[in-house]
Amino acid sequence: MNHLIPLDNLVAALSRLPGIGRRTAERMAMALVQDDKGLMRILANALLEADDGIANCERCGNVTLSAINPCELCTRHRKDAQILCVVESPADIMKIEESGGFQGRYHALMGRLSPMHGTGAADLRVDRLLGRIADEGIAEVLIALGTDVESDATASYLKEVLSNREVKVSRIAFGLPAGSAIEYSDATTLARAIQGRQAI
Amino acid sequence: MNHLIPLDNLVAALSRLPGIGRRTAERMAMALVQDDKGLMRILANALLEADDGIANCERCGNVTLSAINPCELCTRHRKDAQILCVVESPADIMKIEESGGFQGRYHALMGRLSPMHGTGAADLRVDRLLGRIADEGIAEVLIALGTDVESDATASYLKEVLSNREVKVSRIAFGLPAGSAIEYSDATTLARAIQGRQAI
Ligand SMILES: [Zn+2]
Ligand SMILES: [Zn+2]
Repeated sequence: MNHLIPLDNLVAALSRLPGIGRRTAERMAMALVQDDKGLMRILANALLEADDGIANCERCGNVTLSAINPCELCTRHRKDAQILCVVESPADIMKIEESGGFQGRYHALMGRLSPMHGTGAADLRVDRLLGRIADEGIAEVLIALGTDVESDATASYLKEVLSNREVKVSRIAFGLPAGSAIEYSDATTLARAIQGRQAI
Repeated sequence: MNHLIPLDNLVAALSRLPGIGRRTAERMAMALVQDDKGLMRILANALLEADDGIANCERCGNVTLSAINPCELCTRHRKDAQILCVVESPADIMKIEESGGFQGRYHALMGRLSPMHGTGAADLRVDRLLGRIADEGIAEVLIALGTDVESDATASYLKEVLSNREVKVSRIAFGLPAGSAIEYSDATTLARAIQGRQAI
């Protein structure tokens, strides 16, 4: 059968999306080809408009409208503007904002230390972080990274880099998630919850 | 936080892909925004090129290059060109071609009878099927639809429509799939396998 190069190229591009394997990409491509409501063109236009209209905030790394840069979170009044919350990615910023639990500013590293994936300190936005601490009069850096090995390594690295700065360094608490039972918690979570116990 | 309309639109378009829920679409959109290898534009271009370069064969419904229409399967020599295999979609044509088990021509209905989804006989390519039977001297229509209720209804409908034509109507056999055991087969599969028993 004739090779359908445009279809192959579409499958290849879709396969590069996170969590999309070859079979899923093939199914998507066929659905797009079969779609009679112009989805192919709608999706293409949405991509082109996002590519033009969305940017990373040059200050915190958050996603923002290209026309509003630095982003609102960087320029709007924030009650705790002297606290800088360091996260891995813009998705984390959205998540924390949704939680309503933080009123300071953000800084996305755009990754974490990962020798396995070839991500070193120079690939993270650490110089920018140090610059901001000075420029913005930051009193506390709150590290909001996950609980895996790479996040721990990144947190340790940041602690070291920040040790000679006039800034408090903290990390979000680890413990039992809301609504969870001791009985069903894993050992590491329990150990960290006990280690982080607080007086009541 | 500022509403990122281009990002919302991208999530909405991605959500329309088959099997992609809102959360997955959000994760995809963020990955696209974060991607530093131009995936957003690569995918947009692949979509636009597929939209331009891929079409449905005006004869059989198969996907084909827009420049090669009718498709190769319709015009190339086929050993059993007098057998017309009726399927639901172009994906089925690909599947059967890959199996190597069929050497005739194809006809995709682009759906199946489904009162629930509002798909009636007029939405299927049945008129085109009748025209092809006459034009191409088809001797046998092989119905290659699935085993669900809607496929059965579609097969029955086709049988009725074709009953006053000079054409043999057959349907692919149902039975145990390759490599399966009686012990683990479901009742319907077993019943159909017994019903379709053949002399050996
Ligand atoms: Zn910002
Ligand atoms: Zn064709």
